[in-house]
Amino acid sequence: MLLDASSTITLSLPEASNGLLVKNLYLSCDPYMRSRMSNIQGSYIPSFTPGSPITGYGVAKVLDSGPPNFKKGDLFWGFTGWEEYSIINAPESLFKIEHTDVPLSYYTGILGMPGMTAYVGFYEICAPKKGEYVFVSAASGAVGQLVGQFAKLSGCYVVGSAGTKEKVELLKNKFGFDEAFNYKEEQDLDAALKRYFPDGIDIYFENVGGKMLEVVLLNMRLNGRISVCGMISQYNLEQSEGVRNLFCLVSKRLRMEGFIVFDRYHLYPKYMEMVLPLIKQGRICYVEDIAEGLESAPAALVGLFSGQNVGKQVVVVARE
Amino acid sequence: MLLDASSTITLSLPEASNGLLVKNLYLSCDPYMRSRMSNIQGSYIPSFTPGSPITGYGVAKVLDSGPPNFKKGDLFWGFTGWEEYSIINAPESLFKIEHTDVPLSYYTGILGMPGMTAYVGFYEICAPKKGEYVFVSAASGAVGQLVGQFAKLSGCYVVGSAGTKEKVELLKNKFGFDEAFNYKEEQDLDAALKRYFPDGIDIYFENVGGKMLEVVLLNMRLNGRISVCGMISQYNLEQSEGVRNLFCLVSKRLRMEGFIVFDRYHLYPKYMEMVLPLIKQGRICYVEDIAEGLESAPAALVGLFSGQNVGKQVVVVARE
Repeated sequence: MLLDASSTITLSLPEASNGLLVKNLYLSCDPYMRSRMSNIQGSYIPSFTPGSPITGYGVAKVLDSGPPNFKKGDLFWGFTGWEEYSIINAPESLFKIEHTDVPLSYYTGILGMPGMTAYVGFYEICAPKKGEYVFVSAASGAVGQLVGQFAKLSGCYVVGSAGTKEKVELLKNKFGFDEAFNYKEEQDLDAALKRYFPDGIDIYFENVGGKMLEVVLLNMRLNGRISVCGMISQYNLEQSEGVRNLFCLVSKRLRMEGFIVFDRYHLYPKYMEMVLPLIKQGRICYVEDIAEGLESAPAALVGLFSGQNVGKQVVVVARE
Repeated sequence: MLLDASSTITLSLPEASNGLLVKNLYLSCDPYMRSRMSNIQGSYIPSFTPGSPITGYGVAKVLDSGPPNFKKGDLFWGFTGWEEYSIINAPESLFKIEHTDVPLSYYTGILGMPGMTAYVGFYEICAPKKGEYVFVSAASGAVGQLVGQFAKLSGCYVVGSAGTKEKVELLKNKFGFDEAFNYKEEQDLDAALKRYFPDGIDIYFENVGGKMLEVVLLNMRLNGRISVCGMISQYNLEQSEGVRNLFCLVSKRLRMEGFIVFDRYHLYPKYMEMVLPLIKQGRICYVEDIAEGLESAPAALVGLFSGQNVGKQVVVVARE
């Protein structure tokens, strides 16, 4: 519900509710949300319901709670509505926020779903070894910027691709990628990869799909691993592009593995133990693109698919 | 060298040779040989040398030996030449044949490279569980017929595709596949898969690539595994076909893994321990398509790529 400044509404939980009444603070714009705008059979997540507020990850504050494990004033991250206040009927899927000495918005990114995605996709799926060659596409995004930094912390050589000069600079100068390039400026993506990886790629963190995947396959090394996190270049197409060069899976003994972070949330405490000290010691950084106000949310979400955002796209509904 | 009946050549090893002089008995026609007719950069196996006999897997008998671990009369399988007699300079890569109470030609198939390929690709890559749904393409071939039987022995439900009515009958009546279909007679491969796998596919043993892979992806179940053994439908194309639906890797959390059996030959003794009793107890069978005489070898090899062979394609050069 959107509040009109000239009227007052008293918010309350229905009696005997096992849900939460919450005030939404930060909303997260994520590429996976595109699939919820289609009616895909057997999708891993339900489609949005037309006429209802869309739902997504966010950070919110509890105003009233049915279950005893949440109380007024608690902060959490998890699924909430794109609105100022929500009633959440499945509080068991929420993560209570215990550390508030970091920006609260980080729980939509480095300390939330995208952080876990980078962690699972890089460490769990790719099992990186020191000295390996890592390529990350959509590298300045919510997930990619972390994968690149994790790769450096693991002693890997890492190159990222992005779609603007500004993002390429960010990759090299802020996130510490060894090299970066603007894929839109490359006439020949295969040649670009051969320039940055003369000895080939051990690990590809796949965020884009399509033509990029096709040329990456040609440039993989023996026993390489491709962590398939997403394929943002394909989400707005009527039909996905065909990817050639899959025989490289055989000739180079490649493993290509898709994953959904939802399946791995049991690793969240382990991830927090790793990443919180890195943030506090300044050994890892996180760039957010913050849109102000709920009214800016639709454009912020749509902007993801043409790369308008620089870093993690967040919408601030309220700061406290 | 091809011997003319009217002349006699005395065969001998060069002095101080560390090689073997051998008489070739059975030669193996295998799809991977197609890639050796092209000059593919970075291939896992060298291209053939124009003007020299082609090389491939075979069964041969030692006539003379440099190294002490082989002696006259020994049988082995491994790389040899497509000729009546060969000198083999790298005998360390050969497998000595210890069991001769099975057909010798089996060492080009169930007891040789294709057998190991089925074993590694099914057990090692796919880690099958009882009750899982398995699909095998090119299912009556040297590898596919074994994968189907291994799947049944593992308590799986298994369906195979092949390109003739005769092969489909073989799959159902000889190899014990639960179901089989002729992919050439299906107007809609996706509908065919949905008919045989209403609940989806857990394991796909990939031998063909292209359009079949594209529709299999749509029919995989959550956490499915695709063992990529080969892509025979693609080997004679100028450019490989594009495969759509790769986003299913993410939404269904699929693992797709290519392998080359050469990397796993350390498992050969373990495989023999499993498969020899199965053969002797009649719990597994093997169908070969035997071409008589070295002169039939080129047509037999070419025939693989249009599915002329029924079962494992072998060429008999000599029976002893």
